[in-house]
Amino acid sequence: MKITPRPSSPPLRSPEQRRGDPGKASAWQQWLADEASTREEAGLTRRLRERPADDPTTDLAGNDYLGLARDSAVRRAAADAALEWGSGASASRLVTGTFALHAELEQELADYLGQPSALVFSTGYHANLAIVSALADRTTRVISDAHIHASLVDAVRLSRAQLTVVPHSDVEAVRAGLVSAAEAGERAMVLAESVYSVLGDAAPLVELAALCEEYAALLVADEAHGVGVHGPGLVAELGLAGLPHVVVSATLSKALGSQGGAILGPVALREHLVNRARPFIFDTGLAPASTAGALAALREIRRRPELGATVRARVAALADALGVVAPAGAVLSVPMSSPQAAVAAQAAALEAGLRVGCFRPPSVPDGISRLRITVTAGVPADDWARAVETLVALVKEHQ
Amino acid sequence: MKITPRPSSPPLRSPEQRRGDPGKASAWQQWLADEASTREEAGLTRRLRERPADDPTTDLAGNDYLGLARDSAVRRAAADAALEWGSGASASRLVTGTFALHAELEQELADYLGQPSALVFSTGYHANLAIVSALADRTTRVISDAHIHASLVDAVRLSRAQLTVVPHSDVEAVRAGLVSAAEAGERAMVLAESVYSVLGDAAPLVELAALCEEYAALLVADEAHGVGVHGPGLVAELGLAGLPHVVVSATLSKALGSQGGAILGPVALREHLVNRARPFIFDTGLAPASTAGALAALREIRRRPELGATVRARVAALADALGVVAPAGAVLSVPMSSPQAAVAAQAAALEAGLRVGCFRPPSVPDGISRLRITVTAGVPADDWARAVETLVALVKEHQ
Ligand SMILES: Cc1ncc(COP(=O)(O)O)c(C=O)c1O
Ligand SMILES: Cc1ncc(COP(=O)(O)O)c(C=O)c1O
Repeated sequence: MKITPRPSSPPLRSPEQRRGDPGKASAWQQWLADEASTREEAGLTRRLRERPADDPTTDLAGNDYLGLARDSAVRRAAADAALEWGSGASASRLVTGTFALHAELEQELADYLGQPSALVFSTGYHANLAIVSALADRTTRVISDAHIHASLVDAVRLSRAQLTVVPHSDVEAVRAGLVSAAEAGERAMVLAESVYSVLGDAAPLVELAALCEEYAALLVADEAHGVGVHGPGLVAELGLAGLPHVVVSATLSKALGSQGGAILGPVALREHLVNRARPFIFDTGLAPASTAGALAALREIRRRPELGATVRARVAALADALGVVAPAGAVLSVPMSSPQAAVAAQAAALEAGLRVGCFRPPSVPDGISRLRITVTAGVPADDWARAVETLVALVKEHQ
Repeated sequence: MKITPRPSSPPLRSPEQRRGDPGKASAWQQWLADEASTREEAGLTRRLRERPADDPTTDLAGNDYLGLARDSAVRRAAADAALEWGSGASASRLVTGTFALHAELEQELADYLGQPSALVFSTGYHANLAIVSALADRTTRVISDAHIHASLVDAVRLSRAQLTVVPHSDVEAVRAGLVSAAEAGERAMVLAESVYSVLGDAAPLVELAALCEEYAALLVADEAHGVGVHGPGLVAELGLAGLPHVVVSATLSKALGSQGGAILGPVALREHLVNRARPFIFDTGLAPASTAGALAALREIRRRPELGATVRARVAALADALGVVAPAGAVLSVPMSSPQAAVAAQAAALEAGLRVGCFRPPSVPDGISRLRITVTAGVPADDWARAVETLVALVKEHQ
């Protein structure tokens, strides 16, 4: 079929004519320009920085907590899957985009996390959009921790559920929300991260699970930063895995070194998601290389429990050396005296070959600038010891 | 840090006790069960079917229009990237998750599609969520074609924009929407697919672009099914590429045989997305293998323009042989006399080694059951000729 403009189409200037048009900017162009200058004036413009394959710096800002994204067995498994299965899944999981490889990953993930079933998504973001939007609607009450990840915030918005945001890790506020949902006869869902990405603290999962049981609510625990660092995650570690009212969301893109996400929980929940979750149904299945990479990483985690132990020990020692509270996860937050001090320390770290993160106002809730340092088991012990020395000296100097 | 239940936690039965609890199902369990039986009674339950790596059947249901997901150069490039760059990007694109590989893909995509810039996302779904939610808010008017993809529907919901859904490809209705937006002083955005996934027809892009120019609105053209089948896509083919009021959304998961998505348009738009699009900022970068797979596929498409020509010729010939209207894309929709006939034809095709799709009520808007046949350049000419013969005979027999 040839596509031609319909006879009814209005007379058009050629794209060349219009591209050269010096005339008035459209409402959109003006709006984009205004937004850009507002950002620029506030010093908030973010730019992408490309890294080369042979980046000589050590990445202490990402989420490769166990070093598995660059582990040789994991890379090999990802590469082999691309060769064997192809570069993409080519269809929705519901059409022809489910491979035996996906099923294998789902089986082993469920097994390791102690859950009846798992469903794999193409990103962790998709998994979060799916679990909330396929279960909650206008008649549902979602009680969300104030520090919840953007993907869960978006998920609630997408679901149009009634939202109650509670202060961070405030169990009594969650109870109050559940009481009011019960009084209103609303089904209720509680959203928490097992380890919060913002402050690195752990959620009161045991209390939240007990409350959810008491009020017949569902707890969704996002284990993006828990799985791997804490073996099968905090839900499993705390003996909460497999409870019908506790659902786990996990990403394959952090400790599992790959891409993708998963929802773990009752089989009936998985079936519901397969049938109703739009970010699952209307999306191409996870690429074979990412699926196999995550599976290989999972197997490395099971085979080498010392990976998690190493990262936890390194976190504890570095926190101690820096005089900060040890986080539950692998990311250390180091308060600095000023935005300038934080930026200077970050630059000095980079000078020394260490890429660390830096948060400044207004992107910190309390106005305190921070260095963010990701601890990883992926750096050899000697290099790690040197990195710790450098970081401690740097922070002392600039703090 | 060791995670222990806080002292204040209420007394709990052990997970084992609760797992075995035969007591009352929670509101959620009951709801899941009710939903499942409603689906079951309506004959609507969908199940995932796994395919093995050496699947002997030919996939005529997916979206690998040019056969590039399994092309040897593409698979090799994906595999090499996993080996060289690792299995995952390990961080948000804004932190340390942008590789030179992403920049290379963005450059070549923009170049091929004739656009000033491109930004790559981890899925096409993310790209669509991003373009709408980062630009539109409660004060914006979104005018959306009735056949728009689920990801764009979700995107509008996420943005909380004022939504006007217009009848399919109804240019006058779009104009009316733009007039009313202009009167209300609202910025306006028009959403269309260049080739619609539902019916395979092409959007009146020239008219829509002209209207958007006239009313200072933005046209977002989703080229998920256009790029590759029509070379650089219909926007480029129609001379609309590079216009500041025409933005393209593309997926890397269909003709490009990989995973991911991209938004193409003005540089100022790309910068805005980098700074404001939550599905970009709060998501791990696209995995190296998928990035490289898409890049290799793009190069194959440029090197072998006969790929697009082949699929278009096959579509035209098959449509002719089946007596249906040739679609603008690569997916043929063949009306069948009854749901039973459609299912029988699909089963017979599978028997003959051909995996085709089948749509039945209530998932078809007009109540007409259909076979859905994806034409692909990925099948060798002889096999394709045989497949056509088989399909024509089958449809005749069951129609
Ligand atoms: C808590 C949390 N949940 C979900 C996500 C999204 O996961 P993904 O990057 O795999 O989409 C992230 C980070 O990206 C996260 O930190
Ligand atoms: C029109 C359209 N847009 C967007 C998407 C989403 O793309 P992806 O599967 O890469 O997430 C699809 C199909 O999946 C589609 O058909």
